[in-house]
Amino acid sequence: MTESKEEKFYDKKISRRQMLKYTGAGAAGIAIGASGLGGILNVFGMTAPDDDESAVNKVNFYGAHQSGIANEVPTHVYFASLNVTVKSLKELQNLFKAWTPLTVRLMNGEPIGEASSNGFVPAKDTGESKGLDASNLTITFGVGPSLFEKPELGLAHKRPSELKQLPHFPKDQLETAYSDGDICIQACADDPQVAFHAVRNLIRAASGKVTMKWSQAGFNSYPMKKNKKQTPRNLFAFKDGTVNINTKSKTDMNETVWVQPGESASWMTGGSYLVTRRIQMHLETWDRTALGEQEATFGRHRDSGAPLGLHHEMDDLGLDRKESSGEMTIPADSHGRLARESGERILRRSFSYSSGVIDSTGTFDAGLLFISFQKHPKQFIKIQNSFGRVDKLNEYITHRGSALFACFPGVQKGSYIGEALFKSL
Amino acid sequence: MTESKEEKFYDKKISRRQMLKYTGAGAAGIAIGASGLGGILNVFGMTAPDDDESAVNKVNFYGAHQSGIANEVPTHVYFASLNVTVKSLKELQNLFKAWTPLTVRLMNGEPIGEASSNGFVPAKDTGESKGLDASNLTITFGVGPSLFEKPELGLAHKRPSELKQLPHFPKDQLETAYSDGDICIQACADDPQVAFHAVRNLIRAASGKVTMKWSQAGFNSYPMKKNKKQTPRNLFAFKDGTVNINTKSKTDMNETVWVQPGESASWMTGGSYLVTRRIQMHLETWDRTALGEQEATFGRHRDSGAPLGLHHEMDDLGLDRKESSGEMTIPADSHGRLARESGERILRRSFSYSSGVIDSTGTFDAGLLFISFQKHPKQFIKIQNSFGRVDKLNEYITHRGSALFACFPGVQKGSYIGEALFKSL
Repeated sequence: MTESKEEKFYDKKISRRQMLKYTGAGAAGIAIGASGLGGILNVFGMTAPDDDESAVNKVNFYGAHQSGIANEVPTHVYFASLNVTVKSLKELQNLFKAWTPLTVRLMNGEPIGEASSNGFVPAKDTGESKGLDASNLTITFGVGPSLFEKPELGLAHKRPSELKQLPHFPKDQLETAYSDGDICIQACADDPQVAFHAVRNLIRAASGKVTMKWSQAGFNSYPMKKNKKQTPRNLFAFKDGTVNINTKSKTDMNETVWVQPGESASWMTGGSYLVTRRIQMHLETWDRTALGEQEATFGRHRDSGAPLGLHHEMDDLGLDRKESSGEMTIPADSHGRLARESGERILRRSFSYSSGVIDSTGTFDAGLLFISFQKHPKQFIKIQNSFGRVDKLNEYITHRGSALFACFPGVQKGSYIGEALFKSL
Repeated sequence: MTESKEEKFYDKKISRRQMLKYTGAGAAGIAIGASGLGGILNVFGMTAPDDDESAVNKVNFYGAHQSGIANEVPTHVYFASLNVTVKSLKELQNLFKAWTPLTVRLMNGEPIGEASSNGFVPAKDTGESKGLDASNLTITFGVGPSLFEKPELGLAHKRPSELKQLPHFPKDQLETAYSDGDICIQACADDPQVAFHAVRNLIRAASGKVTMKWSQAGFNSYPMKKNKKQTPRNLFAFKDGTVNINTKSKTDMNETVWVQPGESASWMTGGSYLVTRRIQMHLETWDRTALGEQEATFGRHRDSGAPLGLHHEMDDLGLDRKESSGEMTIPADSHGRLARESGERILRRSFSYSSGVIDSTGTFDAGLLFISFQKHPKQFIKIQNSFGRVDKLNEYITHRGSALFACFPGVQKGSYIGEALFKSL
């Protein structure tokens, strides 16, 4: 039924019941086939709007790099990993084309489509973020190794050699329910409903083209000092992010995070590799451990965040310092020392999660949704191998999920998400 | 080792390694037996402090009623259901006595114990809320029917007849992993880490006395208008809480929520019954449904929240209104009409949840952690029976968890949580 025909019915003020019947709504509601929703939402071929500079708490979509990497880390994340069911490269390309205007709108704090003038069809936007502002929403898209292994897409020759499953690390206990995926969508916002709404609407618009593989919600809580966000604490109560890439430094970002020309496949220039690990924290074990032992584990004091023996969070670790006994002040098996000694740097952008109780053990299902960005996965791999079997922290954590995604460069007005990949074909 | 002996060692500035060795910390850290932690935390016998009126974003602990019922609903909840492993009534009583000062401190935004002067023992507070303010934290304790069925506790004769498992309702698909429990702790706060920290520290202090049965984190997002919180939307995008008990009206609260003398067991006077239901929302089905059908399901317009055919959220439902066709404007099978026609009222205090993906179906594990307070469970039961098999909303939701708890009256300075129950014995 066309829009104008619908409007006519609406104008005639036929009873709502008749309306619903006419559109085929039975006891089970209007269940539109998976293939039909995209058409009703009419998102394919939609023109992408501009960034709305007047929107409240708004992060820009357009730029040299995708949002959600260099931006300040907000309080919530909803991270989703998808598998694609598209049958051709064209269909995949159309999916990213369709997602582009929706992403701009979502980041503008707008519904993804205008409200319908009648109730005959599903609403274009699922609506739960109505009345909430943009909440500093960022949306980051990436593609996983498995996407390049689908013969029907013919992308194999475009796969950068480093885009492959991460190696097995000592003590990994990975579950497929929290690992891998063809596409990731990382939605970060200062409101959990805004982040969830973004992912939900993007997946809905891709109905019949993707399935959800796994997802995880997370949070960061910022102590405030003179209206300035302080380093947040993870669920072990240690400050997480004290030593991190300065996202405001172009040099640091170009050296560590953004792929430079010639450093990966050409379509990844300006992009970055995202590693995520669902790290279960054994809170009950940790909570039975002496504070001194906890501090020796990280190589830092818990409350101040200062390196052991020092007083200020931002003091250098001072790896050469020794106790009068001759022992290293920052222990040889401490997480902080091992990370530093790896010689590698990554941009960490993690969130805590608390997802109920693990049935089999009656313990908290809680921990860290570790997320890092780096120009090459080897940066993460080297740090993780440096921890190896030595890291004292191993006693208190278990890696349960793992994924690697290649995040496209940013989008210019008139272009679309992932264009660099499709144009290169 | 006594405190003073520890201090002596600390003063001698022996090496940290020696310290840790002396206290028995080996490769696996200091793993203190379950029974020992309470002693080290030294929370038993601790005197309960006053409410700290100077604390920022602070809700008072002391009063005629427990916090977390009449208070404004903050943005986050962490709800935990516990089973007890105590062997005597005295042990149970001591547990609630021990929880009392901890709860006051947590609600004051303070750590549950002073920081230790050395690292020999586990820290008294797990520390992850350090630097965060009280965040309007409320903590509500309740006891479930199963607590009264333990012969070793001898509480059977104190069980109010209405404190029993809720009846089976049509379409219930309850899972034990989200149902029942001996004790509940509802922690609500404007920060997810503050809510989680509260539950974690209370459970930790009860180490060896309780086990966790289930838990659920949830959120509410408030649209703001002139700095005033508006009714939040659930994940179906409908406003949830438009028609609710006025918690500022003593009459409403006494008629609906607070148990009055003679209405239940004497120890429940001033208390309330808490019903919680983990209600899965089938978002994918809902999102394929025409807006008109969604609105007919609730009997309200989605965006405005107004009753069908009306324009303002706060307009009365107007159950007698009819269309020109003769049909009821608010459909006979709509959720709103059925709730109203039950003639019962309850204080709803629900939160949304988004807990990843359901493995078997690849759909969102998302929905509503329904929480309601009422002076008698029959109020909830009557409303739920009114929905029965008729409610149109049944097509889009499945109840996966259910629990009933009797929440004690409030605590006066010098008293402790649940005193009314133990004193009545």
